[in-house]
Amino acid sequence: MVIVLHPSATQAQIEELKAEVEKEACSIWPIQGKFILVFGVVGDTGRLDRDRLLNKTYVDKVLSVQEPYKKANRMFHPENTVISIEGAEVGGERLAVIAGPCSVESEAQIVGIARQVKESGATLLRGGAFKPRTSPYSFQGMREEGLELLKIARQETGLPIVSELMSIQMLEQFVETVDVIQIGARNMQNFDLLKEVGKTSKPVLLKRGLSATIEELLMSAEYIMAEGNENVILCERGIRTFETYTRNTLDLSAVLALKRLSHLPVVVDPSHAAGMWWMVEALSKAAIAVGADGVMIEVHNDPTNAKCDGAQSIKPERFAVLMQSLRELARIERRVI
Amino acid sequence: MVIVLHPSATQAQIEELKAEVEKEACSIWPIQGKFILVFGVVGDTGRLDRDRLLNKTYVDKVLSVQEPYKKANRMFHPENTVISIEGAEVGGERLAVIAGPCSVESEAQIVGIARQVKESGATLLRGGAFKPRTSPYSFQGMREEGLELLKIARQETGLPIVSELMSIQMLEQFVETVDVIQIGARNMQNFDLLKEVGKTSKPVLLKRGLSATIEELLMSAEYIMAEGNENVILCERGIRTFETYTRNTLDLSAVLALKRLSHLPVVVDPSHAAGMWWMVEALSKAAIAVGADGVMIEVHNDPTNAKCDGAQSIKPERFAVLMQSLRELARIERRVI
Amino acid sequence: MVIVLHPSATQAQIEELKAEVEKEACSIWPIQGKFILVFGVVGDTGRLDRDRLLNKTYVDKVLSVQEPYKKANRMFHPENTVISIEGAEVGGERLAVIAGPCSVESEAQIVGIARQVKESGATLLRGGAFKPRTSPYSFQGMREEGLELLKIARQETGLPIVSELMSIQMLEQFVETVDVIQIGARNMQNFDLLKEVGKTSKPVLLKRGLSATIEELLMSAEYIMAEGNENVILCERGIRTFETYTRNTLDLSAVLALKRLSHLPVVVDPSHAAGMWWMVEALSKAAIAVGADGVMIEVHNDPTNAKCDGAQSIKPERFAVLMQSLRELARIERRVI
Amino acid sequence: MVIVLHPSATQAQIEELKAEVEKEACSIWPIQGKFILVFGVVGDTGRLDRDRLLNKTYVDKVLSVQEPYKKANRMFHPENTVISIEGAEVGGERLAVIAGPCSVESEAQIVGIARQVKESGATLLRGGAFKPRTSPYSFQGMREEGLELLKIARQETGLPIVSELMSIQMLEQFVETVDVIQIGARNMQNFDLLKEVGKTSKPVLLKRGLSATIEELLMSAEYIMAEGNENVILCERGIRTFETYTRNTLDLSAVLALKRLSHLPVVVDPSHAAGMWWMVEALSKAAIAVGADGVMIEVHNDPTNAKCDGAQSIKPERFAVLMQSLRELARIERRVI
Repeated sequence: MVIVLHPSATQAQIEELKAEVEKEACSIWPIQGKFILVFGVVGDTGRLDRDRLLNKTYVDKVLSVQEPYKKANRMFHPENTVISIEGAEVGGERLAVIAGPCSVESEAQIVGIARQVKESGATLLRGGAFKPRTSPYSFQGMREEGLELLKIARQETGLPIVSELMSIQMLEQFVETVDVIQIGARNMQNFDLLKEVGKTSKPVLLKRGLSATIEELLMSAEYIMAEGNENVILCERGIRTFETYTRNTLDLSAVLALKRLSHLPVVVDPSHAAGMWWMVEALSKAAIAVGADGVMIEVHNDPTNAKCDGAQSIKPERFAVLMQSLRELARIERRVI
Repeated sequence: MVIVLHPSATQAQIEELKAEVEKEACSIWPIQGKFILVFGVVGDTGRLDRDRLLNKTYVDKVLSVQEPYKKANRMFHPENTVISIEGAEVGGERLAVIAGPCSVESEAQIVGIARQVKESGATLLRGGAFKPRTSPYSFQGMREEGLELLKIARQETGLPIVSELMSIQMLEQFVETVDVIQIGARNMQNFDLLKEVGKTSKPVLLKRGLSATIEELLMSAEYIMAEGNENVILCERGIRTFETYTRNTLDLSAVLALKRLSHLPVVVDPSHAAGMWWMVEALSKAAIAVGADGVMIEVHNDPTNAKCDGAQSIKPERFAVLMQSLRELARIERRVI
Repeated sequence: MVIVLHPSATQAQIEELKAEVEKEACSIWPIQGKFILVFGVVGDTGRLDRDRLLNKTYVDKVLSVQEPYKKANRMFHPENTVISIEGAEVGGERLAVIAGPCSVESEAQIVGIARQVKESGATLLRGGAFKPRTSPYSFQGMREEGLELLKIARQETGLPIVSELMSIQMLEQFVETVDVIQIGARNMQNFDLLKEVGKTSKPVLLKRGLSATIEELLMSAEYIMAEGNENVILCERGIRTFETYTRNTLDLSAVLALKRLSHLPVVVDPSHAAGMWWMVEALSKAAIAVGADGVMIEVHNDPTNAKCDGAQSIKPERFAVLMQSLRELARIERRVI
Repeated sequence: MVIVLHPSATQAQIEELKAEVEKEACSIWPIQGKFILVFGVVGDTGRLDRDRLLNKTYVDKVLSVQEPYKKANRMFHPENTVISIEGAEVGGERLAVIAGPCSVESEAQIVGIARQVKESGATLLRGGAFKPRTSPYSFQGMREEGLELLKIARQETGLPIVSELMSIQMLEQFVETVDVIQIGARNMQNFDLLKEVGKTSKPVLLKRGLSATIEELLMSAEYIMAEGNENVILCERGIRTFETYTRNTLDLSAVLALKRLSHLPVVVDPSHAAGMWWMVEALSKAAIAVGADGVMIEVHNDPTNAKCDGAQSIKPERFAVLMQSLRELARIERRVI
């Protein structure tokens, strides 16, 4: 950690600061410039409260040398984490393909789609039972009934299921039912929810918030891991920018950054990022080409009548074609689908 | 609502669309341009699912003519809403000044600060008991004990208390204890939490999410109001932009937009927006000058040792000076403090 | 075009509006809703000034049905534009690979790099002679001398050259010297420069501004094309967002949008977007996978001592490896390198 | 400056770095942490090329301790700069009010408006002769003729004139004609133009680019000042964010930041930021309340028929009312209008 003092700092203030830093068993290396005094701080600087330091009127800046996350940090865990999910794997040589409808609508719908995506090579089934919607007047999901239908689809196809958890009340039921708990973008900093999920051992798919930095996403993973659950899959799903042509802007360089900073697997959701079905195939290929560990794709047998997000869903036939492209691509990337 | 068809739309598709729209008791007015066919749709267009329409491959765009919120909409409720909170009022002639520490740290601290801000003219006391923090290793608040200390501060000063609710589990206790439930920026789209808060009659201070549009903020207010609780106070607290000098960018034009679009009161939190104590006074004045119904200001007796956000807190003596400025300003704005 | 009237609009105002619209030979289709009156406008709506309409206090919104660009619009020019540059082609089956140093530094440097990238398969040579730098104290390029050295490099290798033009004063010299005039991101809306470049017939590589929307990029292309020069290559090079890990956020979905909206070729510059050399290979592959017509890559023989942007430059040996990957990828994309 | 080394840096690399830094007469203070080696660098670090340092694969981060601008920096010039413009002053006790139409349209128009705003208390007249427009098909200004009409307006009213310069070709004529050269947001990083303007002694009003950081704005001011012209007025005019309700988001905290970091005067343009006339009065008041040295306001006698930006222009009568408000406000801010 580097502390930049204000040029007006008095000797007494400098001594106060030194004492405070040294109390936390950190040592100080003063660097006297022409105009500015800077302190290099060495030791377990995580024990120093950055905010408290910035509180001091005579402290100008606090620059971080090390990242604030530990368990998610590749520096302390150089090998890739591979997460096992009922036979499927995320983060290893094999690419994960999570496919299915935005929301579960009926047994025929979810079982039908599950069969089709399984046949094309999907490795996990997605399907929303509880849906976060901007408007209170929009369809909010089939809720508990949706979870039951997902179980049937898993039974019929063997595909592990991924579904979004929106509140702690439903946690127990999710742990019993689903194979991967999804935390949606809007809940990425719902810290109470993260902590509770961290107390289970269920794999978690953590979506990047609409305006979350890469560091904040890793800090949210840290919330889960700090409670003991290290089975976290990170998911890039587009960020909010000034561009309005696409629903969000898919940030594929984030995949590279996350893989460098962390050992956790990273998947990409092009459907939510783009919001337009005709972009999904090309963006999925780009995600694999950039080095993602998998993709998450919305597939619906009848997008025109889908109860939500039909505009970004592709049909099972098109998904089969997409899988063909991804397979070719995976081969030259030395990955397997 | 206006539906723009793709130039390739066939007659059969056009008929399908017409049938679907008319089923919802809306009528269609076709407008044939040189290249493009457009449908004007009239009636209760809220019954039409915008997403479903966009699903159709032959629909190019769906343009909204009316806003999607109803209860929060000034069109249907032209007078300003004034919310009464144990003697205090938000949204009327009198400006609300919500002051207090980021987090409750001890009885002496919260009672001391409460007395000082009351003396300077604050109308409500803020203080966090449960704190959302980016890092799991940061101080997370005194929790239930913090709520108890807030009660003591209210008893000692008569100031109604505002505190942030982070999860449904604590709702009952908040309803019994606090006077205004704050929903933080990170939970602005925690829809389950919004619905539950909407089932109570407790005033709610709803903070704009870091990257929430004005329309999304109003849709979140609508979630609360749709459940029956119309006592919603909106709060602008800075949005995330590319600029990193300030923690967030305070969007004062949002105050004007919100007051025009909605009848709900709007307050401004300059402390969180700027993240720097020396900006708070000037931004508070700007907020009142632009027409906000009040401000929310972090005040701490010992910012240097504050357990959180000390860098953006001002001391009680400085708060007294700020109140003096706001009083002068309020007078020329024909408001009262 | 759709004009939404304010509920308070009077009959006289409505008549005024009608007269104004009809004067421009457009016809009006009124749509009377429950609360709101809307006008559908048909005809050559490009003759109506959107701003002028919005000026009227009784006009609430003006919604566009058609895109504001014409010559760049795929609707009126369905086939892809292919641009020929001294033997090289951009926009056809063959992918363009524009490689070279950020700035020309010496004859040995530029000729050496040109030979190496040519050998690995680059199709055009890039090299800056005039450099836009944030700081007036940074290296500003070798200027005229740099152009001379580029000519030598072309003579030695046969590679056509791409270089950035920063002001009209140098236009004549650029027309004589370079094969493609690059307009940098910071000059994307330097309209006077665009117009002058539009009066030549030289191919133009137009970079997207840091915060330019897709529509604004196409409007800037329109400025060039409206003057008669239709040889415009669009270039996505990252946009400014809240994320600071990468220099900018590469927006690969923009490639898809641009290819759909326009017939112009689109290339991607991953070097400037990321700002980190170790991201360049993966992002180049993603660009080709998403459907770009080529990439623009910074290559330097001695990045550590490069006079600018060394951190994002790759070495010639690494470029050779990258070309190997792109070739494999091009094959499965049915493209050629 | 602080240089963070990669944990894998070898002794030879460390020595190389030391040699390079010391060659520029800077001294190095090594700080050895548990995992990471950090170098504090002292001396005239402006001579070190940050980019060159980042080029080295064994350098992880380069953290700046000091700001990169010098002439614009308040650290080396603590007193406010006050700029004199033919009797008017910007940056002193007296507030600047720059008012006038978006573009000059006729003699009657510009002289009429000039008289009216002068009577209400405006101190400078604005009026565009050359207009940067997103579309090549929009009105581009009266050009040279517009400048002539501005001269007549100045003669009739005595108000100094402010007008936007778009390219170097017109510089000489601007120097002869106008009193303040405006550099528009789109040209804030047109570095060639900045340098040329810097060679004159004419006051310059430099608008912040749509997506320019506060530091970049100051670096652009530095470009002008480095050439010898220190008469630079900074102008906040809204930044591009995800919010689309307003044209741009007015960033009033930037005024505070600019006043702290620099000695240059700062004015605010609420008309362009908001894009809606009904927001202008309230935002102008907020700008003065936050501490700006003045405002720049679009006034048009016939906004409905204005050739550009009528939607954001206010009428002279309304401007008179606004001036009344600003006068009241100025008084409590201890400023004069």
